[in-house]
Amino acid sequence: MSKVRVGIVGGTGYTGIELLRLLAQHPNVELAAITSRQEAGMPVTRLFPSLRGAVDLVFSTPEEAMLTSCDVVFFATPNGVAMKQVPSLLEAGVRVIDLAADFRLKDAEEWERWYGMPHACPELLSEAIYGLPEVNRSKIVGAKLVANPGCYPTAVQLGFLPLLEAGWIDRTHLIADSKSGVSGAGRKAETHILFAEASDNFKAYGVQGHRHLPEIRQGLGQIAGEVGLTFVPHLVPMIRGIHATLYATLVDNHDLSALQELYENRYANEMFVDVLPLGSHPETRSVRSSNVCRIAVHRPQGSNTVVILSVIDNLVKGAAGQAVQNLNLMCGFHEQQGLEALPVMP
Amino acid sequence: MSKVRVGIVGGTGYTGIELLRLLAQHPNVELAAITSRQEAGMPVTRLFPSLRGAVDLVFSTPEEAMLTSCDVVFFATPNGVAMKQVPSLLEAGVRVIDLAADFRLKDAEEWERWYGMPHACPELLSEAIYGLPEVNRSKIVGAKLVANPGCYPTAVQLGFLPLLEAGWIDRTHLIADSKSGVSGAGRKAETHILFAEASDNFKAYGVQGHRHLPEIRQGLGQIAGEVGLTFVPHLVPMIRGIHATLYATLVDNHDLSALQELYENRYANEMFVDVLPLGSHPETRSVRSSNVCRIAVHRPQGSNTVVILSVIDNLVKGAAGQAVQNLNLMCGFHEQQGLEALPVMP
Amino acid sequence: MSKVRVGIVGGTGYTGIELLRLLAQHPNVELAAITSRQEAGMPVTRLFPSLRGAVDLVFSTPEEAMLTSCDVVFFATPNGVAMKQVPSLLEAGVRVIDLAADFRLKDAEEWERWYGMPHACPELLSEAIYGLPEVNRSKIVGAKLVANPGCYPTAVQLGFLPLLEAGWIDRTHLIADSKSGVSGAGRKAETHILFAEASDNFKAYGVQGHRHLPEIRQGLGQIAGEVGLTFVPHLVPMIRGIHATLYATLVDNHDLSALQELYENRYANEMFVDVLPLGSHPETRSVRSSNVCRIAVHRPQGSNTVVILSVIDNLVKGAAGQAVQNLNLMCGFHEQQGLEALPVMP
Amino acid sequence: MSKVRVGIVGGTGYTGIELLRLLAQHPNVELAAITSRQEAGMPVTRLFPSLRGAVDLVFSTPEEAMLTSCDVVFFATPNGVAMKQVPSLLEAGVRVIDLAADFRLKDAEEWERWYGMPHACPELLSEAIYGLPEVNRSKIVGAKLVANPGCYPTAVQLGFLPLLEAGWIDRTHLIADSKSGVSGAGRKAETHILFAEASDNFKAYGVQGHRHLPEIRQGLGQIAGEVGLTFVPHLVPMIRGIHATLYATLVDNHDLSALQELYENRYANEMFVDVLPLGSHPETRSVRSSNVCRIAVHRPQGSNTVVILSVIDNLVKGAAGQAVQNLNLMCGFHEQQGLEALPVMP
Repeated sequence: MSKVRVGIVGGTGYTGIELLRLLAQHPNVELAAITSRQEAGMPVTRLFPSLRGAVDLVFSTPEEAMLTSCDVVFFATPNGVAMKQVPSLLEAGVRVIDLAADFRLKDAEEWERWYGMPHACPELLSEAIYGLPEVNRSKIVGAKLVANPGCYPTAVQLGFLPLLEAGWIDRTHLIADSKSGVSGAGRKAETHILFAEASDNFKAYGVQGHRHLPEIRQGLGQIAGEVGLTFVPHLVPMIRGIHATLYATLVDNHDLSALQELYENRYANEMFVDVLPLGSHPETRSVRSSNVCRIAVHRPQGSNTVVILSVIDNLVKGAAGQAVQNLNLMCGFHEQQGLEALPVMP
Repeated sequence: MSKVRVGIVGGTGYTGIELLRLLAQHPNVELAAITSRQEAGMPVTRLFPSLRGAVDLVFSTPEEAMLTSCDVVFFATPNGVAMKQVPSLLEAGVRVIDLAADFRLKDAEEWERWYGMPHACPELLSEAIYGLPEVNRSKIVGAKLVANPGCYPTAVQLGFLPLLEAGWIDRTHLIADSKSGVSGAGRKAETHILFAEASDNFKAYGVQGHRHLPEIRQGLGQIAGEVGLTFVPHLVPMIRGIHATLYATLVDNHDLSALQELYENRYANEMFVDVLPLGSHPETRSVRSSNVCRIAVHRPQGSNTVVILSVIDNLVKGAAGQAVQNLNLMCGFHEQQGLEALPVMP
Repeated sequence: MSKVRVGIVGGTGYTGIELLRLLAQHPNVELAAITSRQEAGMPVTRLFPSLRGAVDLVFSTPEEAMLTSCDVVFFATPNGVAMKQVPSLLEAGVRVIDLAADFRLKDAEEWERWYGMPHACPELLSEAIYGLPEVNRSKIVGAKLVANPGCYPTAVQLGFLPLLEAGWIDRTHLIADSKSGVSGAGRKAETHILFAEASDNFKAYGVQGHRHLPEIRQGLGQIAGEVGLTFVPHLVPMIRGIHATLYATLVDNHDLSALQELYENRYANEMFVDVLPLGSHPETRSVRSSNVCRIAVHRPQGSNTVVILSVIDNLVKGAAGQAVQNLNLMCGFHEQQGLEALPVMP
Repeated sequence: MSKVRVGIVGGTGYTGIELLRLLAQHPNVELAAITSRQEAGMPVTRLFPSLRGAVDLVFSTPEEAMLTSCDVVFFATPNGVAMKQVPSLLEAGVRVIDLAADFRLKDAEEWERWYGMPHACPELLSEAIYGLPEVNRSKIVGAKLVANPGCYPTAVQLGFLPLLEAGWIDRTHLIADSKSGVSGAGRKAETHILFAEASDNFKAYGVQGHRHLPEIRQGLGQIAGEVGLTFVPHLVPMIRGIHATLYATLVDNHDLSALQELYENRYANEMFVDVLPLGSHPETRSVRSSNVCRIAVHRPQGSNTVVILSVIDNLVKGAAGQAVQNLNLMCGFHEQQGLEALPVMP
């Protein structure tokens, strides 16, 4: 099969280097360009020696990069960058996968409220496909513009999905107690994510309101009508990984084996969602560096509260891996192409 | 003020060494003996060089230790040890603080169900005082036998207490999503708490049922009647610290400032409970190595779900520090004696 | 190309699971059996969920495993196990790669002194090939029995090799200050490698004498005559990685660029040794989960002391990856087969 | 005893908060002011909640702080700040302890070469006392201006001191392989010390030349004449702690017990230097949060290379604790005043 020409905008963050790691080993991809205004002219491997021998690109300015000659362009940029460049790329026939949040919300006003800036192309919001293959696979295949989901939203939606689709829980009172490794905060020079601040420590943050809340609410709401959701993110002293602990109240008296069956059936054909046997506790390291989401279902002490445990690698299924999965769908490659490597454990 | 003679049974675990650290610096305490069958004859500082120059005890067998000559004996032993030795110590007039779980539950049958062994002295369960000073201070003062609370139960109870006492929440549907550092699992040679297993990893455990569940349920139930509680513990790759994220549904429409006032008033005279300003997110490191519990109150997005964040150091307020606080109450010392040292941060 | 049938003896440690990760993705390997007396009957994925979907083996007893029907058997056992089983396997025509230390030393007496037991088959010591491909490639190709090098010895030998071969340093006074992640100590239930002991901590160990000392001394000695070596290992609070900081005294006045050229030339055709540009400081994470050794050469302040920095992943180039590299050489596969995956960073 | 009025310039870094932790508990100190231009007006406890209840200072501008009314002023500022303010403070009769590097080197030219700026008051360099009490105790007592030593220099000098004083080693060929926790890099928003960069990783840095090299060389040189020193610092994924592994060649054949005796005698009266028993390996956590330096002496395999292991907490004996020790000497307090707290372990 011939290769697609791929460009990456903003390749100096963690989703950027993770895209490079995955795409450099993808048999159907030709890495054509990677841009970074700040690092223009520097070989990628000077910044990321782990890619020595595999990536010989040099960071270029957006102007030099000739992105319109690419088949697909990934944006691994801060929020608010992609929306300014996407319209002209689409016009030039380039397909786009945005790993930032610019096209994740359908409601422009809500987007502007949470992201604190005017949206540069609100007219594209309805056209963008939310890139969660387990929900939108067929739409992604033909998409011109894919909004790659956030890391928390991926773990939380995959966890709640079967219960909401089945209508077995009270959707007005969902709780998503979520924990993320520090790479989720990005590769930015900020004090609170220094090693000496984040190590040997644990804290919640953004309890009053986090930008992933409206994204999750929108995703869950499209399944079963408006939901009531309390979302509390926490920072874990580990590099990669998200663990979502989800709580919901059962409205019917489905027993644990019915719950287990519901999850196994829902994800039976999903290659990247693995429902663990009854009684399991998924560990984030069991998916480290892989595109898998592992899920376990519990109903502690026989009460009517169901507890779902859902883990992903925030940089893979929560970002770059899911983006490659979307690329595979868009280009007609095998959905696992470039994503077969097993988790690294320990 | 004269000193009390203190003995420690089982001093080779983390609560044991933490007791040593605190008691060695306590002006009213004479460390008389520390027992460990396995390490008998070995100087304490051979095992714990951090105590060099401050502790010159040698581990002794229980027989040599002459514990009946002590005024107070701490048990820092595995569950099931203290209950065999406490009756004879009490008979000899020695007061006892048990840091294990032997005397925490009032119901012997429930204790036996959760701890998987017959109780050696069920008749003492009603006599034992649950050593949470913020609830039982006056009873602790005169106690002969104090059951020092578990680490999770301390963080969770202090977090829910004001709301339950006020009757502002639906007590049938409480959620305690709790996270602990690895020292909470003890200093035992077990595979799952090896560095290479627990580092760079996050997981829930014991979701079906954890021994701290009945203890928390009993404590909260004594305040406001039987509660419905879902308790999910998680293992965090850090040494010390517990972070409890508590969820409850408000039954009346108390706004956030009323909630904040409720907490500030409840703990106004508690020297070891610190209610943070509105909008705060307590970090576990802000209490590292100290006996303080820090709490913040949230009501995200104005919904009727209240979120309480409560942090302690599991080895201090969650174990050895609270035991010293109980000692101070029992012996008429200043309640902060030996517990004044500031948290170590970073 | 047809597949080789491979068996693994002792698959429950870290080198065992790493072998499984690599071999499960190796196109020329059929995983035939994995043994563990203790876990016999348990599916591998119950112990290691990260392998779900890729490995469907069940741990078997050595008897059931029918290892003599394998083409190649890996031993990932504690020291002293392989030497008892290897003779009969060799007799049956099975080729063996031992990841433990049983066949690393040529001198049986020295082996017995350092490993504290009699050797079960000293006659095989001279026959065994020390599996460091950068030194012994041609011998490995035809080997029946390969002694896979230790982790420290791999990093240290690759670091000193070019200087010793060139005769540019005083070989009587070498210093190897070496640091290892905690997985190097194995997956054993021992107190000193618990998370709460090894985290946020750093220490040297075995300064008086470590078993890797005679192995390194033997390897370096074969190049240039007997060496004088001081080897000090340290434990680093990280999971994977070895960093060797090597010191030697230059006997001639070769300048830094000559040193750099020496290293680049020596390793020009080595696919798994990467000499970094002048002025570099290799990080262990730059080789995490990969079979690469990265090396940098320094001559600080123009003195006659040369400093070599050498990093590997102890579980890959320091154990399972090097074993697969040896398998490839022995079976005539491409030397990189199954080892192409890029390092996982961050 | 009456209290001394103390001011701190630049209190938002790790040495600043550590000074606050120690001084807030010091019975002879009145904390009068703490300055930070950037945080002026903000309560200290907003930035550092661990100090709540113990420190009620507000960060002030240098102008408001009225530092000339203090008895002693600590500088916990970046290099190059103190030298601009110290002359006027000294003139006003204020005594100064500089925790930065401004007054550590005697040679102004060398200082300017390493620190890359002109020195603002080179005439004070000869007057400043290098604040290593184990070497300069009597001079510190009367000092007006104390240059508090760097963290690496403290660990390395205390380690080499006895051997150099005794003249037992070849001083032209010393090696100091040194490892530091990440807090040693300060509380600065820089990418390379982010959690996701520094965690699960190990590397050397500054091999060509680190600013602590001339400081160590000067200190060791004053003991026994000019030394030849190779100094290689490394970054360890832990918060606090320095471990120096020191190598030297014995010139006479002193055996290990003679070496041990030399160290024990040299430090017999030093309350903050603890020579461990023969065969020990000091851990950094054994001194965590305390002002102690622990040292062990080795002579591996009976060779003529002596290996010294020396550990300190870089923020205490390597910075704030040593500064308080110097304060105690300058003010005639007990040298341990405010420094008695035991190490926090685990």
